[in-house]
Amino acid sequence: MLQNIRVVLVGTTHPGNIGGAARAMKNMGLSRLVLVDPRIFPSPDADARASGATDILEGAQVVATLEEALVGCRLVLGTSARDRSLPWPMLDPRASGVKVVEQAGQGAEVALVFGREHAGLTNEELQRCHFHVHIPSDPGFSSLNLAAAVQVLSYEVRMSWLAASEQPVQDEPSKSAHSAGLATMDEMEGFYAHLEATLVAIGFLDPEKPRHLMARLRRLYGRSEVEHSELSILRGILTETQKAARGEPYKRKDQ
Amino acid sequence: MLQNIRVVLVGTTHPGNIGGAARAMKNMGLSRLVLVDPRIFPSPDADARASGATDILEGAQVVATLEEALVGCRLVLGTSARDRSLPWPMLDPRASGVKVVEQAGQGAEVALVFGREHAGLTNEELQRCHFHVHIPSDPGFSSLNLAAAVQVLSYEVRMSWLAASEQPVQDEPSKSAHSAGLATMDEMEGFYAHLEATLVAIGFLDPEKPRHLMARLRRLYGRSEVEHSELSILRGILTETQKAARGEPYKRKDQ
Repeated sequence: MLQNIRVVLVGTTHPGNIGGAARAMKNMGLSRLVLVDPRIFPSPDADARASGATDILEGAQVVATLEEALVGCRLVLGTSARDRSLPWPMLDPRASGVKVVEQAGQGAEVALVFGREHAGLTNEELQRCHFHVHIPSDPGFSSLNLAAAVQVLSYEVRMSWLAASEQPVQDEPSKSAHSAGLATMDEMEGFYAHLEATLVAIGFLDPEKPRHLMARLRRLYGRSEVEHSELSILRGILTETQKAARGEPYKRKDQ
Repeated sequence: MLQNIRVVLVGTTHPGNIGGAARAMKNMGLSRLVLVDPRIFPSPDADARASGATDILEGAQVVATLEEALVGCRLVLGTSARDRSLPWPMLDPRASGVKVVEQAGQGAEVALVFGREHAGLTNEELQRCHFHVHIPSDPGFSSLNLAAAVQVLSYEVRMSWLAASEQPVQDEPSKSAHSAGLATMDEMEGFYAHLEATLVAIGFLDPEKPRHLMARLRRLYGRSEVEHSELSILRGILTETQKAARGEPYKRKDQ
């Protein structure tokens, strides 16, 4: 599905940016690069910045015009500064990711088009695009590096693709593992009772004047969603603390 | 508000990446760059890649250790490859942007930490982070360029900031009160040192075989976002535990 998506770089001046764009694409699982009239390509600078994504550079298609680059496409998105004389349907990168994945998932060929480092896309080129994409940036310093722009759009495509394929990868696996291993309420109650007894034993908690101490500790540990294995550690600490309070020695090599 | 957010680059090898990161930050409205032990800085390569974001390079703070870079921070996010031996609370870049903006908007100092080009962050460095951020990437080619990673995270911060600025503050007051009172990173470091010493004193932690004990406790308390007042309680408990371990008596009416 991601193979239906091509990245088109128009009139790129610095070959390093072509390499950086290839790396960004490959990181995000995209593979098809089309270069429209690049100033210098291939180039050692492109290879260096690609940092291992050389297969994408080697497979890149080099064409003379944007028209050739877009052959077969059903959806074309072009990056653009915001204020153009010609109003055009605009998308932000997130909405672009959604739309691209939606279309590519239905088998359509899709192009993401990026303009020249300094001049962007011409109005004529922009008019070949169904949508213009504006990457939100600080108005006082709005021009992203070309490879950085490719990175942001490719990232949004990947985020949308992951969501669409409902890959569990997307959502923190550590979190689900975490919640599977959470201590139960009764285990937590056992811990709080142990904690309270220990605090009394070391003289930190005065049963005559408990104030809100246990409530505050419950709030703290409750917020943390303690896991089984963590609870074992905490209870181990309490057990050793109680021994210390009773004046029992403990065995350790270095003492 | 965005000025509460610092970008921390640890042990950067290529100065060009520092420049690229500065440009990405400035594009997204971020301005505070902290460099931990960069190999080469300042550098013409950094200036060239910054492409006009030289003010950020000139204002960059250069420090020797990550600890110095994080002074005053209440929330620290560190970028990480996914599979670590020690599971840690993970966020994707989008959730990171939301969390960062939420905290920075309440006046908290926040750090986004990025590791070395090839080696990333060490486990010790990762344990200083409340959350690890994994940028979803193709498992077969997963390592993003450093400046590209800064671009993605900064972009998500900006997207979240733009969304938040559209809707005037509607956060539960209890929640903002909570985060206003959060312990800072250096206070937490003081606590961890105290905790470690106490666990050694009661014989629970063997300095010869520490295993992952402190890391696991850091993870537990880090997740809980400890408040100042809670930290006082915890440190009070540690102080009394140390006295018990030394066999010192305590005064209480009922004994």
